[in-house]
Amino acid sequence: MTRQELIDLIYTRRSFLCVGLDVDKNKMPEHLRNAEDGVFQFNKAIIDATIDYTVAYKPNLAFYEAMGIEGLVQLKKTMDYLHSLDKPAFTIADAKRGDIGNTSQQYAKAFLDPKGDFNFDALTIAPYMGADSVQPFTVYDNKWVILLALTSNKGAFDFQFLPVDGEKKLFEQVLETSKQWGNPDNMMYVVGATKADMLTQVRAIAPKSFLLVPGVGAQGGSLEEVCKYGLTNECGLLVNSSRGIIYASNGTDFAERAGEEARKLQQQMASVLK
Amino acid sequence: MTRQELIDLIYTRRSFLCVGLDVDKNKMPEHLRNAEDGVFQFNKAIIDATIDYTVAYKPNLAFYEAMGIEGLVQLKKTMDYLHSLDKPAFTIADAKRGDIGNTSQQYAKAFLDPKGDFNFDALTIAPYMGADSVQPFTVYDNKWVILLALTSNKGAFDFQFLPVDGEKKLFEQVLETSKQWGNPDNMMYVVGATKADMLTQVRAIAPKSFLLVPGVGAQGGSLEEVCKYGLTNECGLLVNSSRGIIYASNGTDFAERAGEEARKLQQQMASVLK
Repeated sequence: MTRQELIDLIYTRRSFLCVGLDVDKNKMPEHLRNAEDGVFQFNKAIIDATIDYTVAYKPNLAFYEAMGIEGLVQLKKTMDYLHSLDKPAFTIADAKRGDIGNTSQQYAKAFLDPKGDFNFDALTIAPYMGADSVQPFTVYDNKWVILLALTSNKGAFDFQFLPVDGEKKLFEQVLETSKQWGNPDNMMYVVGATKADMLTQVRAIAPKSFLLVPGVGAQGGSLEEVCKYGLTNECGLLVNSSRGIIYASNGTDFAERAGEEARKLQQQMASVLK
Repeated sequence: MTRQELIDLIYTRRSFLCVGLDVDKNKMPEHLRNAEDGVFQFNKAIIDATIDYTVAYKPNLAFYEAMGIEGLVQLKKTMDYLHSLDKPAFTIADAKRGDIGNTSQQYAKAFLDPKGDFNFDALTIAPYMGADSVQPFTVYDNKWVILLALTSNKGAFDFQFLPVDGEKKLFEQVLETSKQWGNPDNMMYVVGATKADMLTQVRAIAPKSFLLVPGVGAQGGSLEEVCKYGLTNECGLLVNSSRGIIYASNGTDFAERAGEEARKLQQQMASVLK
């Protein structure tokens, strides 16, 4: 999906919501836990209930890998389903990969290759290993790197805020340096909603870039704050909610309740997109 | 595998070689490329030919993921085979994972859980997201986190050498801070062989820790240099070679040639272990 297609989708659906498909069997409705293709059935129901309010879906790979190979089969079915729909959605593999150049090429193939098992639009990448660990992900047409800048967790304070080379913080240096590796048409950044006040600093370095913002909901981030500091005149935000939507209920009404939660967020988003 | 078991294995086999099972179909011998279970057959032959000279095997996940779900089936067969052998080997998932706490728990389950599909001894982890992204990997008994400190690639210079908080470099800060998250019984560090002269600084902060050292061979690192600056009185090193061993030949003699290359390295290692 191109940048313009993403922007058009946001303004058509009047939403910049990303639904995190972080499926944990222990939190799924009981009737699906041991059902055949239960994880896929769960995801399918969530997608059907939320797609009118959502522009993106973000499965976190960890949850699928934790189920072993069978988990990845369920992820492939989910992706095949998303690709089969008339309604488009931007798909993000939240995988936080990154390795030396020739190895990152393999990860890029795994997640972004249109002929691969998954064919995601985008992939999250950790910046620690630098340029050659990130650049192989930028070579696929209309595909995206989403680089970790400022994460939503407590551990973000261990390194990301360290002052480097004088006054700049490490996450600012990551934003600055990575401009040489991509551009606002193929690179986004992760900036946690729990650090919304930092969005001003992020926007000073990356005024046009899309930001993927996790941490609204269960992690305590505020949508209002995120919009206040992060919104651009092309929206420029994808705000993710995972647990707050997909586990709104663990009963047979889980999909209906997920749809309601997504709709609530969409309505808030529609009002700021005016 | 415990630290003491690893040390005993090193002194029994007189080797601290780790063989990187980074299988790329395009580089495999032609007769195996389209064979059923060709990747597993390749790995099995490499393992059989090298295990007497090797203490560890390190499949890099990227190469398996690039083959889609089938690649992970081949990896599982490889791990099942390693677990079935009378001869022990330390197994490392070179996956460079790391995510917020509850997500890292899922990655830990995926790779380290004895009941999971893979049951590795260790997993490589990227440090950018800090404490809660790393600690979930330290809760499994006799399992290991291998934290990226100083990587072997050119991109390492983008961030890892940045001075933080004054004089210290970022990789030194990572070593220092991570001491609160684990200890030499459950945490190792990645230090690239191409940065062997930095091993003195690494040893100043982590005198007892095992170091996983990639970059000997195709990437240009020197085993001699690595030993000079990194060896401890308990060895303290696992030196990885991937392409130099597994692609020593791409003919039908690939396993034999891999065995010869592993043996050469083992003999050099035996002489420094005296």
